Parts: sequence; structure tokens; C-alpha cells
Amino acid sequence: MSSGVATGKNCHGWAARDESGFLSPYEFSRRAVGSEDVSVKITHCGICYADVLYTRNKLKHSKYPVVPGHEIVGIITEVGRDVGKFKIGDHVGVGTYVDTCRDCENFPTIGGTYADGSTCKGGYSQFIVVYERYCYKIPDKYPLAQAAPLLCAGITVYTPMIRHNMNQPGKSLGVIGLGGLGHLTVKFGKAFGLNVTVFSTSASKKDDALNLLKADNFVLSSDKEQMSALSKSLDFIVDTASGDHPLDLYMSLLKAGGVLALVGFPGEELKLSPLSLLMDMRSISGSTVGGTKRTQEMLEFCAEHEIHPEIEVIPVQYSNEALERLQKNDVKYRFVIDIENSLE
Amino acid sequence: MSSGVATGKNCHGWAARDESGFLSPYEFSRRAVGSEDVSVKITHCGICYADVLYTRNKLKHSKYPVVPGHEIVGIITEVGRDVGKFKIGDHVGVGTYVDTCRDCENFPTIGGTYADGSTCKGGYSQFIVVYERYCYKIPDKYPLAQAAPLLCAGITVYTPMIRHNMNQPGKSLGVIGLGGLGHLTVKFGKAFGLNVTVFSTSASKKDDALNLLKADNFVLSSDKEQMSALSKSLDFIVDTASGDHPLDLYMSLLKAGGVLALVGFPGEELKLSPLSLLMDMRSISGSTVGGTKRTQEMLEFCAEHEIHPEIEVIPVQYSNEALERLQKNDVKYRFVIDIENSLE
Repeated sequence: MSSGVATGKNCHGWAARDESGFLSPYEFSRRAVGSEDVSVKITHCGICYADVLYTRNKLKHSKYPVVPGHEIVGIITEVGRDVGKFKIGDHVGVGTYVDTCRDCENFPTIGGTYADGSTCKGGYSQFIVVYERYCYKIPDKYPLAQAAPLLCAGITVYTPMIRHNMNQPGKSLGVIGLGGLGHLTVKFGKAFGLNVTVFSTSASKKDDALNLLKADNFVLSSDKEQMSALSKSLDFIVDTASGDHPLDLYMSLLKAGGVLALVGFPGEELKLSPLSLLMDMRSISGSTVGGTKRTQEMLEFCAEHEIHPEIEVIPVQYSNEALERLQKNDVKYRFVIDIENSLE
Repeated sequence: MSSGVATGKNCHGWAARDESGFLSPYEFSRRAVGSEDVSVKITHCGICYADVLYTRNKLKHSKYPVVPGHEIVGIITEVGRDVGKFKIGDHVGVGTYVDTCRDCENFPTIGGTYADGSTCKGGYSQFIVVYERYCYKIPDKYPLAQAAPLLCAGITVYTPMIRHNMNQPGKSLGVIGLGGLGHLTVKFGKAFGLNVTVFSTSASKKDDALNLLKADNFVLSSDKEQMSALSKSLDFIVDTASGDHPLDLYMSLLKAGGVLALVGFPGEELKLSPLSLLMDMRSISGSTVGGTKRTQEMLEFCAEHEIHPEIEVIPVQYSNEALERLQKNDVKYRFVIDIENSLE
């Protein structure tokens, strides 16, 4: 175990310099390893839709250069003197947060501001320094590349399912959209013993939904007959879709007391009839990522139940093309950058 | 105990004949008392905003003549041969449902359709015949006039509070709107030991909110400074307001994981930013009335904790004027018709 050092180390990464979002090699300094920090040599980093938002300043708070990436896995190379949970060589994951003011605010992995005023930089890079509380143990033998998408996509869909008691066998689950979030929702749903229906605007997803992901039912959302046949039949819906889609129609598929969990970003404004909520006591509940205990629990659940994200492994040099393809939903189902073997 | 009879009895009431909603005396036949039914001599009937909607065909499914009223209390005068829960002379309440197909559908008190095809008629009338499951015991000594508003307004706000664990002392509750529903929410909130903030568009409500209803805090919703001072401070909001109001603003007052329970009817369309839900995992949850067990529990809770609605008792002859005043929010805080002493 080494103690924290006073100055940071140089780190190679890829960064966007402006709103074009174009990524290119970038060198910067990581902060020194503090007494409660660990340093993680990054082996893989998943590509989340947030990387599109941050590199292109879609949320209007990006601070360039932006090093994206908050689905990070790797191996611990250094630990602060007060770190108790980890040792050098451990396989770990880092998600959307890297530090905290120890009071009430968390610091986001991409673009957050550390207590010293510097800007957090993400996982398209060689290594990262993280407060140990935001570092998770990857279970033994779980493949590191496949662990990456669990750190954001995985916990984002796992959290509302647990919060709303959707880990009870026999319940019925609807999944809107079959992308990075949606395909993991189906996998969790089947592991929980649920009856899973996938809704998609694209008939081309049917084969994967039923045969690869083992959903029980696939419905083309434009098929009015199939949609109305499911009226009041679902306990829960996880809505992973981006862009406008007819919320009232999906709400009508919920049983009394049913909940639609919003985890995607469906445009600027949600519109729905109050009757969709009032009749049959239905709810819409937003959710993003999840807490630290639940994240660790989710990783162990995935190892135990052999839940593995479907990924396309790419070199970092392909990341610009990958971000373009992601915007066209052209990925089955998550890009993961092989940092270890492609970033010099 | 008398057994069910084959033919119904004549009943005097007041009904609307067309979309003007104007009420006038009306004579009709109540169905015969079946083996599981009770007949209730109505002493009082509360005036709910639903009475405005039904008499004026605002929901486009009224079947005239419409006898409104679903906050009914009275005294049992006849019981079917298989009725076990009630006896003649019992003080009882009847709410928004009067019967069921015994399978999945409930029949609404106003304008529902019985199994025999006839239309349900409400409580602006001398007596009503009800399936015993939809009849509730009014606790001894609880005043009948004040029990009436509990059957719809009371259970409508009590149900989401219990469902979302808002009966835990020390939690913080926001109440939007101070009318029939809102004033009862404050009373329940204080009985549960909550810190209650009332939001109103009308400064004239401040004195009643703080001094009559014992709310802890009153905020004029147009006061931006006071509103933003409450950012992320509330565990739960009960939204009783009708008409458009800024949902995103109220959502921003909720803590992480907070819930806004929608119990009013805020216009044709709800609009809000998805970020209001996604950030801090907030929810909007609709609710109307509540189940039969919870209704009985609520009545007993009100008796035990001496929760009494604030009412203005009127004769049935005043009901047209009362419905006009209700549409202008000109009532403190619920009209109750003294059926027993005014309807011949």
C-alpha cells in the first residue's frame, strides 16, 4: 500500500475540445491519490448516451476539454493510507460519481468540479483517481469488458426495478425501447422471473428481443390492436426511449397502481392527461443511476445470475464513429472501449 | 331484519335534466333490497366537485336525469337476508361506489349502470340501496353531517398519504390548494405529526391555514422568493388544485425520492420537464378515492383523532346556488346538504 502523494500524475486520454464533440488525444494531470482514494488503471470504458450529451454540450454546462466516459472498469494500482475496502490488483468499477464533498454534494465523473476547483475527467483515459466510496468490487471471474455497461446502464434500470418491488417472480414488465438500457432491463426482468414484453418502434428488434434476450412478448408500438390487447395488463413499465412517444397510451397498459419508470430522456417536455394518473392510481417515477450499496448489490446479482450485457468492443480510435452510430441507435447493445489495448 | 323484496320503492330526490345542470325535484324508483344489500335513509349528503362535472356533463358520459351526490351518510332502515355486517339503526356512510358485478367492475354511485341495466342515482335523495360491501360504519358519536365529506374528499386524500408512508411524524408535507380536499389534507397531516406547508394563490387563505387548520407554514405560490427557499425541502406534496399550475416548480420543492400525489383535476393536459422526474428520482402519482378497508380505517382514524371537516350545512333547495358557489371556490370548506330536514 502506498500513501497519497502531493502531486498528481500525467494521464493520456481522449477529449472533445468544442461543441463538435470530436474526440482526439489529450494529456492532462490526474489529482494526487488522497488518503481515502484509490487509483485505477482503466481496462475498459462503456459508451453511454451521456457521452454524446457532454461532448456536444447538449446540457449547456460542459467545460472543455471534456474527457467522457462514466462506465469505467479496471485494476487498482494504488491505494490511499486510509483505504480499507480495496487492495492493489482488485478488479473494480467506477460509475457516474468519483468524489463527494463529504456533506451533501456528489461530484460527477464527467465535468464535475472537485473541491479544489478542478474539473473531473472521465474514463476515456489510462487511469482515474477515485474516492473509495465510489469504487465497486467487480466479482471474481466476471469479465471486465462486460462489467463496464453495468456501472451506468445497469444500475439505472436495476434501481427502479428494486425500488418498486419488481424483483418478484410472476409480475409483468413492459420495456419501452431496446437499446443499452432496454436490453439490460429485459435481462434483469427474466432473472427476476418476470413476464417481459418489449415495445419497440422497429420490427427488426423482434428476433433479438425474443431469441437473444428471451423476452416473453414483442409488440410493435405502432400496432394498435396488439397495444390495446395489453390494456391494464402490466405491473410496471421501464421507459428507456428517447424522443417523443405517446405516454398516455403506455399508461393505459398499466394495471391499477402500476408505475412507469422513466429512465430515458424523452425530449424537452412530457405531456399526458391527468386521467392517465388519476384513473387506477398510476404513477410516473423518474430514476437515474443509483446508490453505492445498490450498485455493489447489482454487480453481485449479475455475477450470480450470469447477466452479461451484449457489447461491441472497440478501440479508442473508433470512439468518434461509435458516438455517431450511437446517435442512430446503431449498436447491439453497448459499445465498450478496450482502453487497455488501444490507448497508448 | 327483512329479506329482499321483489320490487323497488319510490324515492324523492333532486336531479339535473340537461347540461345546464339545474337541479329540481325528481321522483324515481330505487331497486329492491337484494340479499346482500342494505337500504339507507339519507340524513346528509356532501357536495363534491364531481357533482358539478356530472350534472353539467363535463366528462361527456352523463345519463340524464342525473341525481348527484356521493358523500352520503344516514341510518340503515332495511337489510337483506345475507347481510352480516349491519343492522337496522346503524349509522353508515356510502361513497363513490354502490355495487359491483362481483367480478372486476365497480358501479359508480352517480350514473353507473347496475347489472340490470338501470342507472345509479346519487345521494341528493331520501334513501339509497347499496351492496353492503360499499357501506361503512360511522363510528359512534361522530356527527353525521361532518362524516359526509369523508366519504369522497376524506378518503381521496387519506389514501395517497398512507400509500406513500406519509403517516410518519416529522416528515414534511406540502398541500397545493385549500378547498374541500386541501383542508382535509392539512388536518390529516397534523394528525400524523407532519410539518405542513400550504400553497395557495390566494392570500386570503393564510389566516385559516395557520389558525383554523393549524398548518405550520403558508406560502403564496406567486412569491418566488418563498417558493425557492423551499427548494428540495418536502417529502410529499398533495396537489388538490384545479386548473393549470406550474408542476415543475412544485416538483423542485421535493426532496430526492419525493412524490407529488395528484388528486385534483388540473386541466386537460399535464406538462412537465422529464428532468423534474429524472433528477432526484421524483414521482407523480395519481389517486382517486380508495378501497373499502381503507375507507373504514379512515373513518375510525377521524373519530379517534377528532378530525372534523369544516362544513357549511345547507337545505337541498339551496343546492343550485351551492354548485355555482363551489365553481368559484366560495365555500369553507365543504357544503353538506341536510337531506333529512329539507327534502320532503
